[in-house]
Amino acid sequence: MQTRFTVQTNGPGLYEFTRDVAGWVRGTGLLTLMIQHTSASLVIQENADPEVQTDLQNFFARLVPPTTDPSMAYLTHTYEGPDDMPAHIKASLLPTHLSIPVTDGCLALGTWQGIYLFEHRDRPHSRHVVAHLSG
Amino acid sequence: MQTRFTVQTNGPGLYEFTRDVAGWVRGTGLLTLMIQHTSASLVIQENADPEVQTDLQNFFARLVPPTTDPSMAYLTHTYEGPDDMPAHIKASLLPTHLSIPVTDGCLALGTWQGIYLFEHRDRPHSRHVVAHLSG
Amino acid sequence: MQTRFTVQTNGPGLYEFTRDVAGWVRGTGLLTLMIQHTSASLVIQENADPEVQTDLQNFFARLVPPTTDPSMAYLTHTYEGPDDMPAHIKASLLPTHLSIPVTDGCLALGTWQGIYLFEHRDRPHSRHVVAHLSG
Repeated sequence: MQTRFTVQTNGPGLYEFTRDVAGWVRGTGLLTLMIQHTSASLVIQENADPEVQTDLQNFFARLVPPTTDPSMAYLTHTYEGPDDMPAHIKASLLPTHLSIPVTDGCLALGTWQGIYLFEHRDRPHSRHVVAHLSG
Repeated sequence: MQTRFTVQTNGPGLYEFTRDVAGWVRGTGLLTLMIQHTSASLVIQENADPEVQTDLQNFFARLVPPTTDPSMAYLTHTYEGPDDMPAHIKASLLPTHLSIPVTDGCLALGTWQGIYLFEHRDRPHSRHVVAHLSG
Repeated sequence: MQTRFTVQTNGPGLYEFTRDVAGWVRGTGLLTLMIQHTSASLVIQENADPEVQTDLQNFFARLVPPTTDPSMAYLTHTYEGPDDMPAHIKASLLPTHLSIPVTDGCLALGTWQGIYLFEHRDRPHSRHVVAHLSG
Protein backbone atom coordinates (compact mmCIF):
# COMPACT_ATOMS: atom_id res chain seq x y z
CA MET A 1 0.00 0.00 0.00
CA GLN A 2 1.51 3.30 -1.08
CA THR A 3 0.56 6.97 -1.03
CA ARG A 4 2.20 10.37 -1.15
CA PHE A 5 1.94 13.10 1.47
CA THR A 6 2.53 16.76 0.62
CA VAL A 7 3.91 19.10 3.27
CA GLN A 8 3.79 22.84 2.59
CA THR A 9 6.77 24.70 4.05
CA ASN A 10 7.42 28.40 4.59
CA GLY A 11 11.09 28.72 5.50
CA PRO A 12 13.54 26.67 7.56
CA GLY A 13 12.19 24.67 10.46
CA LEU A 14 10.33 21.55 11.53
CA TYR A 15 6.80 20.82 10.29
CA GLU A 16 4.95 18.05 12.10
CA PHE A 17 2.70 15.71 10.09
CA THR A 18 2.32 12.80 12.53
CA ARG A 19 -1.50 12.93 12.38
CA ASP A 20 -1.65 12.63 8.59
CA VAL A 21 0.53 9.52 8.78
CA ALA A 22 -1.27 8.00 11.78
CA GLY A 23 -4.57 8.42 9.96
CA TRP A 24 -3.35 6.48 6.92
CA VAL A 25 -1.71 3.37 8.43
CA ARG A 26 -3.64 0.20 9.29
CA GLY A 27 -3.03 -3.38 10.39
CA THR A 28 0.41 -4.60 11.45
CA GLY A 29 3.48 -4.01 9.31
CA LEU A 30 6.26 -1.57 8.54
CA LEU A 31 5.76 2.01 7.42
CA THR A 32 8.48 3.71 5.39
CA LEU A 33 8.42 7.42 4.52
CA MET A 34 10.89 8.80 1.96
CA ILE A 35 11.29 12.45 1.00
CA GLN A 36 11.72 13.07 -2.73
CA HIS A 37 14.04 16.06 -2.27
CA THR A 38 17.72 16.66 -1.43
CA SER A 39 17.32 19.95 0.45
CA ALA A 40 14.85 18.89 3.17
CA SER A 41 14.77 15.97 5.62
CA LEU A 42 12.52 13.73 7.70
CA VAL A 43 13.13 13.43 11.45
CA ILE A 44 11.51 11.84 14.46
CA GLN A 45 11.86 14.25 17.38
CA GLU A 46 10.33 15.33 20.66
CA ASN A 47 6.83 16.77 20.21
CA ALA A 48 6.34 18.04 23.78
CA ASP A 49 8.25 21.31 23.82
CA PRO A 50 8.49 23.51 20.67
CA GLU A 51 11.79 24.92 21.99
CA VAL A 52 13.41 21.61 21.01
CA GLN A 53 12.52 22.28 17.38
CA THR A 54 13.86 25.85 17.48
CA ASP A 55 17.08 24.69 19.12
CA LEU A 56 17.53 21.93 16.54
CA GLN A 57 17.13 24.37 13.69
CA ASN A 58 19.61 26.79 15.29
CA PHE A 59 22.17 24.04 15.86
CA PHE A 60 22.15 23.06 12.19
CA ALA A 61 22.17 26.72 11.07
CA ARG A 62 25.43 27.13 13.04
CA LEU A 63 26.97 23.83 11.99
CA VAL A 64 26.26 24.56 8.32
CA PRO A 65 25.94 28.36 7.83
CA PRO A 66 24.95 30.02 4.51
CA THR A 67 27.60 30.27 1.81
CA THR A 68 27.81 34.02 2.54
CA ASP A 69 29.58 33.07 5.78
CA PRO A 70 33.39 33.32 5.33
CA SER A 71 33.86 29.85 6.86
CA MET A 72 31.95 28.36 3.91
CA ALA A 73 34.03 30.07 1.20
CA TYR A 74 35.33 26.68 0.03
CA LEU A 75 31.90 25.68 -1.33
CA THR A 76 31.52 25.90 -5.11
CA HIS A 77 27.83 25.09 -5.71
CA THR A 78 26.58 28.61 -4.87
CA TYR A 79 24.58 29.84 -7.88
CA GLU A 80 21.22 28.58 -6.55
CA GLY A 81 21.49 30.88 -3.53
CA PRO A 82 23.42 31.01 -0.23
CA ASP A 83 20.99 28.55 1.40
CA ASP A 84 21.19 25.88 -1.34
CA MET A 85 24.44 23.97 -0.78
CA PRO A 86 24.05 24.17 3.04
CA ALA A 87 20.59 22.63 2.51
CA HIS A 88 22.17 19.70 0.63
CA ILE A 89 24.71 19.25 3.44
CA LYS A 90 22.00 19.30 6.12
CA ALA A 91 20.02 16.81 4.02
CA SER A 92 23.03 14.46 4.15
CA LEU A 93 23.36 14.83 7.96
CA LEU A 94 19.64 14.19 8.58
CA PRO A 95 17.44 11.29 7.41
CA THR A 96 16.05 10.98 3.88
CA HIS A 97 13.69 8.26 5.06
CA LEU A 98 12.08 6.92 8.23
CA SER A 99 10.85 3.39 8.96
CA ILE A 100 8.36 2.87 11.78
CA PRO A 101 6.73 -0.43 12.82
CA VAL A 102 2.92 -0.37 12.84
CA THR A 103 1.01 -2.52 15.35
CA ASP A 104 -2.77 -3.04 15.19
CA GLY A 105 -3.22 0.13 13.18
CA CYS A 106 -0.98 2.30 15.40
CA LEU A 107 2.47 3.75 14.78
CA ALA A 108 4.87 2.19 17.33
CA LEU A 109 6.23 5.60 18.34
CA GLY A 110 7.38 6.41 21.85
CA THR A 111 5.34 8.78 24.03
CA TRP A 112 7.24 11.91 23.01
CA GLN A 113 8.02 11.09 19.38
CA GLY A 114 6.52 13.03 16.48
CA ILE A 115 7.20 12.85 12.73
CA TYR A 116 8.56 16.04 11.19
CA LEU A 117 9.61 17.38 7.85
CA PHE A 118 12.73 19.50 8.38
CA GLU A 119 12.86 22.25 5.73
CA HIS A 120 16.35 23.63 4.94
CA ARG A 121 15.50 26.18 2.21
CA ASP A 122 14.40 29.79 2.75
CA ARG A 123 11.64 30.01 0.15
CA PRO A 124 8.25 28.22 0.47
CA HIS A 125 8.16 24.71 -0.97
CA SER A 126 5.65 21.89 -1.53
CA ARG A 127 7.52 18.82 -0.27
CA HIS A 128 6.54 15.34 -1.39
CA VAL A 129 6.92 12.33 0.89
CA VAL A 130 6.30 8.82 -0.52
CA ALA A 131 4.81 6.32 1.95
CA HIS A 132 4.99 2.54 1.72
CA LEU A 133 3.22 0.21 4.16
CA SER A 134 4.22 -3.45 4.00
CA GLY A 135 1.85 -6.05 5.45
CA MET B 1 6.71 -10.65 13.46
CA GLN B 2 7.38 -8.01 16.08
CA THR B 3 9.01 -7.77 19.49
CA ARG B 4 10.58 -5.20 21.76
CA PHE B 5 14.14 -5.25 23.14
CA THR B 6 15.10 -3.38 26.29
CA VAL B 7 18.64 -2.06 26.68
CA GLN B 8 19.73 -0.85 30.11
CA THR B 9 22.13 2.09 29.96
CA ASN B 10 24.34 3.68 32.57
CA GLY B 11 25.60 6.94 31.12
CA PRO B 12 26.71 8.06 27.64
CA GLY B 13 28.27 5.48 25.36
CA LEU B 14 27.64 2.55 23.03
CA TYR B 15 25.89 -0.60 24.26
CA GLU B 16 26.07 -3.61 21.95
CA PHE B 17 23.02 -5.89 21.63
CA THR B 18 23.82 -7.74 18.39
CA ARG B 19 23.42 -11.16 20.03
CA ASP B 20 19.91 -10.44 21.31
CA VAL B 21 18.86 -9.43 17.81
CA ALA B 22 20.67 -12.30 16.05
CA GLY B 23 18.96 -14.76 18.37
CA TRP B 24 15.49 -13.49 17.48
CA VAL B 25 15.56 -13.29 13.65
CA ARG B 26 14.71 -16.26 11.42
CA GLY B 27 14.13 -17.05 7.75
CA THR B 28 14.81 -14.52 4.99
CA GLY B 29 13.43 -11.00 5.16
CA LEU B 30 14.11 -7.51 6.42
CA LEU B 31 14.70 -6.60 10.05
CA THR B 32 13.92 -3.07 11.23
CA LEU B 33 14.82 -1.78 14.69
CA MET B 34 13.39 1.55 15.90
CA ILE B 35 14.24 3.27 19.17
CA GLN B 36 11.25 4.77 21.00
CA HIS B 37 13.22 7.71 22.43
CA THR B 38 14.56 11.06 21.18
CA SER B 39 17.68 11.24 23.37
CA ALA B 40 19.41 7.97 22.35
CA SER B 41 20.23 6.41 18.98
CA LEU B 42 20.87 3.13 17.16
CA VAL B 43 24.09 2.67 15.21
CA ILE B 44 25.92 -0.04 13.32
CA GLN B 45 29.62 0.29 14.07
CA GLU B 46 32.89 -1.60 14.27
CA ASN B 47 32.84 -4.26 16.97
CA ALA B 48 36.53 -5.20 16.83
CA ASP B 49 38.23 -2.46 18.83
CA PRO B 50 36.46 -0.79 21.81
CA GLU B 51 38.56 2.35 21.20
CA VAL B 52 36.33 3.06 18.21
CA GLN B 53 33.33 3.34 20.52
CA THR B 54 35.15 5.64 22.95
CA ASP B 55 36.37 7.85 20.11
CA LEU B 56 32.87 8.06 18.63
CA GLN B 57 31.42 9.13 21.96
CA ASN B 58 34.13 11.77 22.40
CA PHE B 59 33.62 13.13 18.89
CA PHE B 60 29.92 13.72 19.53
CA ALA B 61 30.61 15.14 23.01
CA ARG B 62 32.82 17.78 21.36
CA LEU B 63 30.55 18.45 18.40
CA VAL B 64 27.55 18.92 20.74
CA PRO B 65 28.81 19.90 24.22
CA PRO B 66 26.53 20.31 27.28
CA THR B 67 24.49 23.50 27.54
CA THR B 68 26.85 24.65 30.31
CA ASP B 69 29.46 25.20 27.58
CA PRO B 70 29.51 28.89 26.50
CA SER B 71 29.33 27.88 22.81
CA MET B 72 25.86 26.41 23.46
CA ALA B 73 24.43 29.52 25.17
CA TYR B 74 21.96 29.96 22.28
CA LEU B 75 20.01 26.84 23.29
CA THR B 76 16.72 27.49 25.10
CA HIS B 77 15.49 24.00 26.09
CA THR B 78 17.71 23.70 29.16
CA TYR B 79 15.43 22.98 32.13
CA GLU B 80 15.76 19.19 31.84
CA GLY B 81 19.50 19.40 32.49
CA PRO B 82 22.65 20.38 30.57
CA ASP B 83 22.76 16.99 28.78
CA ASP B 84 19.13 17.05 27.55
CA MET B 85 19.05 19.32 24.48
CA PRO B 86 22.49 18.08 23.31
CA ALA B 87 21.02 14.56 23.55
CA HIS B 88 18.16 15.57 21.23
CA ILE B 89 20.66 17.08 18.79
CA LYS B 90 22.82 13.94 18.80
CA ALA B 91 19.66 11.89 18.30
CA SER B 92 18.96 13.91 15.14
CA LEU B 93 22.53 13.38 13.84
CA LEU B 94 22.47 9.60 14.46
CA PRO B 95 19.91 6.99 13.35
CA THR B 96 16.53 6.50 15.01
CA HIS B 97 16.14 3.20 13.15
CA LEU B 98 18.20 0.53 11.42
CA SER B 99 17.14 -1.86 8.65
CA ILE B 100 19.17 -5.01 8.06
CA PRO B 101 18.45 -7.76 5.52
CA VAL B 102 18.18 -11.26 7.02
CA THR B 103 19.26 -14.28 4.97
CA ASP B 104 18.54 -17.89 6.03
CA GLY B 105 18.17 -16.84 9.66
CA CYS B 106 21.32 -14.67 9.75
CA LEU B 107 21.72 -10.90 9.88
CA ALA B 108 23.48 -9.80 6.66
CA LEU B 109 26.05 -7.76 8.59
CA GLY B 110 29.64 -7.33 7.46
CA THR B 111 32.45 -9.03 9.37
CA TRP B 112 33.14 -6.06 11.67
CA GLN B 113 29.64 -4.70 12.09
CA GLY B 114 27.81 -4.76 15.41
CA ILE B 115 24.45 -3.27 16.49
CA TYR B 116 24.67 -0.66 19.25
CA LEU B 117 22.39 1.54 21.27
CA PHE B 118 24.11 4.92 21.64
CA GLU B 119 23.03 6.54 24.93
CA HIS B 120 23.26 10.36 25.06
CA ARG B 121 21.91 11.03 28.59
CA ASP B 122 23.94 11.00 31.82
CA ARG B 123 21.50 9.14 34.07
CA PRO B 124 20.67 5.43 33.75
CA HIS B 125 17.79 4.61 31.41
CA SER B 126 15.80 1.59 30.23
CA ARG B 127 15.68 2.06 26.47
CA HIS B 128 13.01 0.36 24.36
CA VAL B 129 13.70 -0.78 20.80
CA VAL B 130 10.80 -2.06 18.66
CA ALA B 131 11.73 -4.80 16.17
CA HIS B 132 9.82 -5.73 13.02
CA LEU B 133 10.77 -8.67 10.79
CA SER B 134 9.05 -8.83 7.41
CA GLY B 135 8.95 -12.12 5.55
CA MET C 1 14.38 -11.08 -3.29
CA GLN C 2 17.98 -10.29 -2.35
CA THR C 3 21.25 -9.56 -4.11
CA ARG C 4 24.56 -7.88 -3.45
CA PHE C 5 26.07 -4.97 -5.38
CA THR C 6 29.79 -4.30 -5.43
CA VAL C 7 31.05 -0.73 -5.83
CA GLN C 8 34.74 -0.21 -6.57
CA THR C 9 36.14 2.94 -4.98
CA ASN C 10 39.38 4.82 -5.51
CA GLY C 11 39.66 7.32 -2.69
CA PRO C 12 37.20 9.54 -0.82
CA GLY C 13 34.12 10.74 -2.68
CA LEU C 14 30.69 9.85 -3.98
CA TYR C 15 30.20 6.98 -6.44
CA GLU C 16 26.79 6.80 -8.11
CA PHE C 17 25.21 3.39 -8.74
CA THR C 18 21.55 4.36 -9.31
CA ARG C 19 21.42 2.54 -12.67
CA ASP C 20 22.58 -0.78 -11.22
CA VAL C 21 19.84 -0.59 -8.60
CA ALA C 22 17.13 0.63 -11.01
CA GLY C 23 17.91 -2.27 -13.33
CA TRP C 24 17.41 -4.84 -10.58
CA VAL C 25 14.12 -3.78 -8.94
CA ARG C 26 10.71 -4.90 -10.20
CA GLY C 27 7.04 -4.80 -9.23
CA THR C 28 5.82 -2.72 -6.29
CA GLY C 29 7.44 -2.94 -2.88
CA LEU C 30 10.20 -1.57 -0.71
CA LEU C 31 13.90 -1.65 -1.60
CA THR C 32 16.48 -1.58 1.20
CA LEU C 33 20.21 -1.20 0.57
CA MET C 34 22.68 -1.81 3.43
CA ILE C 35 26.43 -1.30 3.26
CA GLN C 36 28.48 -4.05 4.94
CA HIS C 37 31.25 -1.70 6.09
CA THR C 38 31.79 0.86 8.87
CA SER C 39 34.08 3.25 6.96
CA ALA C 40 31.84 4.08 3.97
CA SER C 41 28.21 5.21 3.66
CA LEU C 42 25.17 5.25 1.39
CA VAL C 43 23.50 8.55 0.54
CA ILE C 44 20.75 9.87 -1.69
CA GLN C 45 21.88 13.20 -3.11
CA GLU C 46 21.48 15.58 -6.02
CA ASN C 47 22.65 14.06 -9.29
CA ALA C 48 22.44 17.19 -11.45
CA ASP C 49 25.60 19.09 -10.57
CA PRO C 50 28.85 17.24 -9.68
CA GLU C 51 29.92 20.28 -7.61
CA VAL C 52 27.39 19.19 -4.98
CA GLN C 53 29.32 15.95 -4.52
CA THR C 54 32.68 17.73 -4.24
CA ASP C 55 31.27 20.22 -1.75
CA LEU C 56 29.74 17.42 0.35
CA GLN C 57 33.05 15.60 0.50
CA ASN C 58 34.89 18.81 1.48
CA PHE C 59 32.35 19.61 4.21
CA PHE C 60 32.86 16.22 5.86
CA ALA C 61 36.65 16.42 5.42
CA ARG C 62 36.58 19.67 7.43
CA LEU C 63 34.05 18.50 10.02
CA VAL C 64 36.08 15.32 10.65
CA PRO C 65 39.72 15.92 9.62
CA PRO C 66 42.44 13.21 9.63
CA THR C 67 43.93 12.23 12.99
CA THR C 68 47.12 14.08 11.96
CA ASP C 69 45.17 17.30 12.50
CA PRO C 70 45.90 18.75 15.98
CA SER C 71 42.16 19.18 16.65
CA MET C 72 41.75 15.38 16.48
CA ALA C 73 44.54 14.60 18.98
CA TYR C 74 41.98 13.17 21.42
CA LEU C 75 41.29 10.17 19.16
CA THR C 76 42.91 6.91 20.25
CA HIS C 77 42.08 4.48 17.41
CA THR C 78 44.88 5.66 15.12
CA TYR C 79 46.97 2.62 14.22
CA GLU C 80 45.03 1.82 11.03
CA GLY C 81 46.03 5.17 9.52
CA PRO C 82 45.04 8.84 9.91
CA ASP C 83 41.93 8.35 7.73
CA ASP C 84 40.55 5.34 9.64
CA MET C 85 38.86 6.69 12.76
CA PRO C 86 37.56 9.78 10.88
CA ALA C 87 36.04 7.29 8.39
CA HIS C 88 34.18 5.55 11.24
CA ILE C 89 32.92 8.91 12.51
CA LYS C 90 31.71 9.94 9.05
CA ALA C 91 30.05 6.52 8.74
CA SER C 92 28.10 7.28 11.93
CA LEU C 93 27.01 10.71 10.63
CA LEU C 94 25.86 9.35 7.25
CA PRO C 95 23.45 6.49 6.47
CA THR C 96 24.40 2.82 6.69
CA HIS C 97 21.23 1.90 4.83
CA LEU C 98 18.65 3.41 2.49
CA SER C 99 15.02 2.39 1.98
CA ILE C 100 13.24 3.45 -1.20
CA PRO C 101 9.67 2.57 -2.24
CA VAL C 102 9.39 0.87 -5.64
CA THR C 103 6.29 1.45 -7.79
CA ASP C 104 5.53 -0.56 -10.94
CA GLY C 105 9.18 -1.47 -11.35
CA CYS C 106 10.51 2.05 -10.78
CA LEU C 107 12.40 3.55 -7.82
CA ALA C 108 10.19 6.30 -6.31
CA LEU C 109 13.06 8.81 -6.34
CA GLY C 110 12.57 12.53 -6.91
CA THR C 111 13.73 14.12 -10.15
CA TRP C 112 17.17 15.09 -8.86
CA GLN C 113 17.87 12.18 -6.53
CA GLY C 114 20.62 9.65 -7.19
CA ILE C 115 21.96 6.75 -5.08
CA TYR C 116 25.61 7.08 -4.05
CA LEU C 117 28.20 5.15 -2.13
CA PHE C 118 30.21 7.67 -0.10
CA GLU C 119 33.78 6.37 0.39
CA HIS C 120 35.65 7.71 3.43
CA ARG C 121 38.96 5.81 3.12
CA ASP C 122 41.99 6.86 1.06
CA ARG C 123 42.93 3.50 -0.42
CA PRO C 124 40.90 1.68 -3.12
CA HIS C 125 38.20 -0.65 -1.78
CA SER C 126 35.61 -3.11 -3.08
CA ARG C 127 32.47 -2.15 -1.17
CA HIS C 128 29.59 -4.60 -0.74
CA VAL C 129 25.98 -3.44 -0.56
CA VAL C 130 23.25 -5.95 0.31
CA ALA C 131 19.88 -5.33 -1.36
CA HIS C 132 16.50 -6.61 -0.18
CA LEU C 133 13.26 -6.08 -2.12
CA SER C 134 10.04 -6.87 -0.27
CA GLY C 135 6.92 -7.50 -2.31
